[in-house]
Amino acid sequence: MFKISKESKKSEARLGVLKTKSGNLKTPFFMPIATRGVIKSLSYQDIENLGPQIILGNTYHLYLKPGLKIIKKAGGLSKFMNNKFPVLTDSGGFQVFSLSKIRKLLTNGVRFQSTYDGSWHLFTPEKVMKIQSVLDSDIQMVLDVCSDSRSNNRKLLKALELTTKWAQKCKREKKKLDPKNKNLLFGIVQGGLNKELRLKSLSDLVEIGFDGYAIGGLAVGETNQEMYKVLDYISSAMPKDKPRYLMGVGYPENIIEAVKRGVDMFDCVIPTREARHGRLYLKNKFYPAPFSSKKRCGVYKTINIINAKFANDFSLINKDSKLEELKKYNKAYLHHLFKVQDPLALKLATLNNIEFYLDLMRNIRKAIAGNNL
Amino acid sequence: MFKISKESKKSEARLGVLKTKSGNLKTPFFMPIATRGVIKSLSYQDIENLGPQIILGNTYHLYLKPGLKIIKKAGGLSKFMNNKFPVLTDSGGFQVFSLSKIRKLLTNGVRFQSTYDGSWHLFTPEKVMKIQSVLDSDIQMVLDVCSDSRSNNRKLLKALELTTKWAQKCKREKKKLDPKNKNLLFGIVQGGLNKELRLKSLSDLVEIGFDGYAIGGLAVGETNQEMYKVLDYISSAMPKDKPRYLMGVGYPENIIEAVKRGVDMFDCVIPTREARHGRLYLKNKFYPAPFSSKKRCGVYKTINIINAKFANDFSLINKDSKLEELKKYNKAYLHHLFKVQDPLALKLATLNNIEFYLDLMRNIRKAIAGNNL
Repeated sequence: MFKISKESKKSEARLGVLKTKSGNLKTPFFMPIATRGVIKSLSYQDIENLGPQIILGNTYHLYLKPGLKIIKKAGGLSKFMNNKFPVLTDSGGFQVFSLSKIRKLLTNGVRFQSTYDGSWHLFTPEKVMKIQSVLDSDIQMVLDVCSDSRSNNRKLLKALELTTKWAQKCKREKKKLDPKNKNLLFGIVQGGLNKELRLKSLSDLVEIGFDGYAIGGLAVGETNQEMYKVLDYISSAMPKDKPRYLMGVGYPENIIEAVKRGVDMFDCVIPTREARHGRLYLKNKFYPAPFSSKKRCGVYKTINIINAKFANDFSLINKDSKLEELKKYNKAYLHHLFKVQDPLALKLATLNNIEFYLDLMRNIRKAIAGNNL
Repeated sequence: MFKISKESKKSEARLGVLKTKSGNLKTPFFMPIATRGVIKSLSYQDIENLGPQIILGNTYHLYLKPGLKIIKKAGGLSKFMNNKFPVLTDSGGFQVFSLSKIRKLLTNGVRFQSTYDGSWHLFTPEKVMKIQSVLDSDIQMVLDVCSDSRSNNRKLLKALELTTKWAQKCKREKKKLDPKNKNLLFGIVQGGLNKELRLKSLSDLVEIGFDGYAIGGLAVGETNQEMYKVLDYISSAMPKDKPRYLMGVGYPENIIEAVKRGVDMFDCVIPTREARHGRLYLKNKFYPAPFSSKKRCGVYKTINIINAKFANDFSLINKDSKLEELKKYNKAYLHHLFKVQDPLALKLATLNNIEFYLDLMRNIRKAIAGNNL
């Protein structure tokens, strides 16, 4: 399933290939987020022009809207959204704990109110595997208990013990639903900022055995240094021959630091969410190398296109882009589109930022190959 | 400038070619509306895929946002929005009278408050010609006084007399700004539903002399029959050798009826506005002929994709479309996009409806050529 082809001589960074039923993925990679069965404002043609290796769908949202009946009839998430790239789906755990104001943690799962209409639902380990089976995602995640990384140790321990128990149940259910193991299943390491708990969580999961291991419960408010400290010990303790996925991270500099610590997979709302607010990621003149660990890693800048100074800036949105629309429209026009709130503004900014992230990952892989990271 | 190539044997309908500096236009034609320098949610690539003959921009909106300084620097409206098709701009008169709650009609122009920020502005005949000169639109319109078609005759007369006076000033100003007559200038016939006043307005304008004549003040609340009655006498009284433009009309059946009465040019918000509300225009099995005057002219249907029944409808959005996205996505997916309010929904519906209107005009021209209309 996963094969490492190269280890950097400079860091823990590594190159690999992760096999999925829908295609092979070169690690390290970044997954753009298609929360509700669409990367906000992009059509399948736009996505094909971007050419991501894989995209991410959110189980919580898709289960509530359009619901499983529709996606089942469509033949899975990719067929529903006309997507030709592999897909990873999360388990919905994170959304249940972050979006649903009212929820109740039970031993066998978690009851929560829909963020859409207040209706009550129950997610159990078995249920989220059934949902992901209908979504037919290439990489599926276990249901985890997401606790605040600053919780006390008793609470963190309880959360990770439940996570382990649920992970076991997920694996069992997945075996029933997918006996030929067409799709991959990843476990999720919890334990907050506590080293002992993180290592316990990891060893519990490794004992059960998964196709890959994710690090959950980071990028939820802790400092960069706290996050890197966790990565320092947890990543090297993870099985070498399995892909390592740092969930919900992050800014380009966070990704670079995590890659150096041996992480292979990333997803984050930053490129798409910041596009909505007019923030564009652009290469600076030192791009792509050398990658440094300082803020913006020395190789990129961001601009807020809504800023008044761009009203009058007739330079191209992104002359380095391979996307024609970003090379032909100028900044003054994009500024205008944001000012009159035309949906085209969102599309152009989203394309720009996702392209930046995908290109960053390509250059990270190149840097690892050349022992430059 | 305008040459008629064929007159139908069945009606007053005619085929012609209108020359503009940016290209020749086959009449009768329809102009999709790019109110604020963008056809809502469509990029220039989307517009090129649709292939309209000409698009329409709104002077009122573009003057207020982004403002003339920006558009001048861009080199005109088409360069600003990266548009390769000819452009018609209105004079802003209609928006001043419909959008600005507070306005004051003066002899030399009209003072109004911006719909965006409440700031005060003055549109005079000279000013709107200067604005359109900066926009560099291929077809420009005179500033007219838009009065309610149900106003009393005294009010209608006063409005049309002022319209004539302003038309004269517009022509004079245009000559100064565009001495080589690169761009065309159209007069606008007013007079409400009063035959005598309409004919007076027309003969006043013809005396001044314009490159084309528009019929204003219709499609503002009167019945179809009242509108057709005005067209019956005004269209045949208009110069035969100049294009006739019915402003702001309409549903496909209105367009067909107007073409039969000799009208050559149309614009309307219907295809774009109804797209925003999920209403799709689709051909029915009798499309394109015979064109009848009954509702929906016997050849099309509309569906509201937001309707619950489409949640479960996996037929293609529009199998007859030449646009790949409309042929590959299904109705259930478009329904879902509207439900989760993704901007891609608006884009797909807008593409569908504009394509329908452009195709309708193509078939109307074909029908005239074959003496079938």
